Amino acid sequence: MSGIYLDYQSASPVDPRVHDFAERYLTKEFGNPSALHSSGLAAKVALEEARAKVAEFINAESAETIVFTSGVTEANNLAIRGTALRNSSKGKALLASAIEHISVLNPMKDLKKGGFDLALVPVDSTGIIDLVMLESLLSKETILTSIMYANSEIGTIEPIREASEIVHKKGLYLHVDAAAAEGRIPIDVQNDGIDLLTLSSNDLYGPQGAGALYIKPGMRIQPVLFGGGQERGFRSGTENLFAIVGMGEAARLAKMEMEGEGNRLRGIRDELIKKLLQIDEAYLTGHPHKRLSNHASFRFSRIEGESILLTLDAMFNIQVSTGSACSSRTLEPSHVLLAIGLKHEQAHGSMVMTLGKHNDPDQVPLIATAVSNTVQRLRALSPL
Amino acid sequence: MSGIYLDYQSASPVDPRVHDFAERYLTKEFGNPSALHSSGLAAKVALEEARAKVAEFINAESAETIVFTSGVTEANNLAIRGTALRNSSKGKALLASAIEHISVLNPMKDLKKGGFDLALVPVDSTGIIDLVMLESLLSKETILTSIMYANSEIGTIEPIREASEIVHKKGLYLHVDAAAAEGRIPIDVQNDGIDLLTLSSNDLYGPQGAGALYIKPGMRIQPVLFGGGQERGFRSGTENLFAIVGMGEAARLAKMEMEGEGNRLRGIRDELIKKLLQIDEAYLTGHPHKRLSNHASFRFSRIEGESILLTLDAMFNIQVSTGSACSSRTLEPSHVLLAIGLKHEQAHGSMVMTLGKHNDPDQVPLIATAVSNTVQRLRALSPL
Repeated sequence: MSGIYLDYQSASPVDPRVHDFAERYLTKEFGNPSALHSSGLAAKVALEEARAKVAEFINAESAETIVFTSGVTEANNLAIRGTALRNSSKGKALLASAIEHISVLNPMKDLKKGGFDLALVPVDSTGIIDLVMLESLLSKETILTSIMYANSEIGTIEPIREASEIVHKKGLYLHVDAAAAEGRIPIDVQNDGIDLLTLSSNDLYGPQGAGALYIKPGMRIQPVLFGGGQERGFRSGTENLFAIVGMGEAARLAKMEMEGEGNRLRGIRDELIKKLLQIDEAYLTGHPHKRLSNHASFRFSRIEGESILLTLDAMFNIQVSTGSACSSRTLEPSHVLLAIGLKHEQAHGSMVMTLGKHNDPDQVPLIATAVSNTVQRLRALSPL
Repeated sequence: MSGIYLDYQSASPVDPRVHDFAERYLTKEFGNPSALHSSGLAAKVALEEARAKVAEFINAESAETIVFTSGVTEANNLAIRGTALRNSSKGKALLASAIEHISVLNPMKDLKKGGFDLALVPVDSTGIIDLVMLESLLSKETILTSIMYANSEIGTIEPIREASEIVHKKGLYLHVDAAAAEGRIPIDVQNDGIDLLTLSSNDLYGPQGAGALYIKPGMRIQPVLFGGGQERGFRSGTENLFAIVGMGEAARLAKMEMEGEGNRLRGIRDELIKKLLQIDEAYLTGHPHKRLSNHASFRFSRIEGESILLTLDAMFNIQVSTGSACSSRTLEPSHVLLAIGLKHEQAHGSMVMTLGKHNDPDQVPLIATAVSNTVQRLRALSPL
């Protein structure tokens, strides 16, 4: 990939060390972990080693709390549908922050069609959830509350521990989607008070095709996919060993390197924000400092984020995002940007940069010049 | 992997050509197909090329009929739950052959808890479904019938076209799980009269972590996983591009090479069956000739299949299966072997050999001697 890639939240390259570590499970040690012969047993050992690494990454009580899935969307669906359908006799109310990812909101909306209630906790203009509203929206019927660890569109980090105290004080359960946060900030499910945690492989520079759901001991959930009963019955289907082993190794590396790499990226990120805010009518979206170390998000008045993206790509070979890749092909404004109080036309001027391994400080002046030129050019063309 | 591997149905190595073809999507061309910049567009092109290859592999009407999933289990769940829940206003009856894979039967059993009816079509002693019973069990309420193309435990190939005519004569829908059959026998969804077809990547020597569901134009189904609306809304979640691109290339290679490789394996397989049936009280399970070209399955009286498996593995470095890897860790006898009329103690004596790329005719005498010695040894120890 040539040019300057600034869209690590939507897809990241597999770390070469992860690739080297896991590759043998594609072509050489390709056993099925459920098979009873020695190839199967070797695969089972590799699977359980990966599980232990992921458990350690989030300080889980034991490796058994980790259920591997095909990715974040499946883990979020398992957390939400699995909890809701298993515990519907206790209540049928769901609660989520207004800025959750659509793989959290859409399973909840589907459950709403089936008779569940869904309420959304508002956020302030920086994207921080309103803890007073959280408390007042919780009822005995609230069988699950979802609050993301950090938001991928605006980078804001949520006060998970405070939210957890509020939810737990009422004896209720908290699900946390950590796809954007993992590898950026240390996660400790026990200390943070998390009952269900969604993890992604690729956000740690592991292969696509693996994710995980941490399920706190004692949580009762049911599967979404039915079949051979793999993953202790929580997730049937032959394990994607390459991706899972890769995810385990990626988690091990992230635990060791997160702090140093976070500091490195934060330096680049701060410089980038400083430079880009010098552009006329450029605004930071999200929180000024409670934000992911690799995350810089902006809005520019009077132009479309999509036009910025396409111009930066075509003319400067710089790849950015307008928000969530998942919804990038719809023309709807981002629900996240509307939730922080932006008007439709303001939300359409969004540009998101997420940094990663291949970025370095030398790129900042190039990026700043390119964005500045792009914004000027587009505004000159704009009828607004 | 050293020794002689005879368990290709439970896991297969990725073809080195597939690996070489798809590897760049892990570390170099790692874009998210939903992203709008050039990396995203390149990923989208690769995704759609894979879709076209899979469609061509089964002679589908168009590439748009193919929905990629994380594997067979998810594809089967999507076919069954997706059809049942979307069409429940028309009827709530499900029908399946008695020897379907548990990733077909278990989603149906879960729906049964939710008020659906489930009936099973019996099979004869060779595993062929009873077409008269199929016809008599169908009613206007039968919103979906599942019949597998071939069975992975006994190798029997089902009369799909005849079954389809019966189902379609009543205006109903047929789902076919082709995980065991694909790459062994040519599949033509239009000619075969298939409405929903489940495909696996790994059974074609593609990577784990990808599968597909063919959805005939006009079929109405709903998703199982909710989120970003990828795969035209039928399957949300960031695409596992490496596995999907690998599956596409594996399908292309399989289409070209299936016939030659099938003939080669059939020769080895026939020799293997001939030799092993010389063992005292050894019986073939499944159909004598309507069976997969790579499939040899047996039962031996007075011994346990699991003991055969472990002895062959430990003493001769030969890896076989007792049936389905998915259920290998339960002590229950196989539902497939019970369905063909075996008694519990007969079903426990099962041994399954599935051949693949790394097998050659020279291995047959070694395998035959090893199995013969193993059976004698175990019978000498047996209290029966």
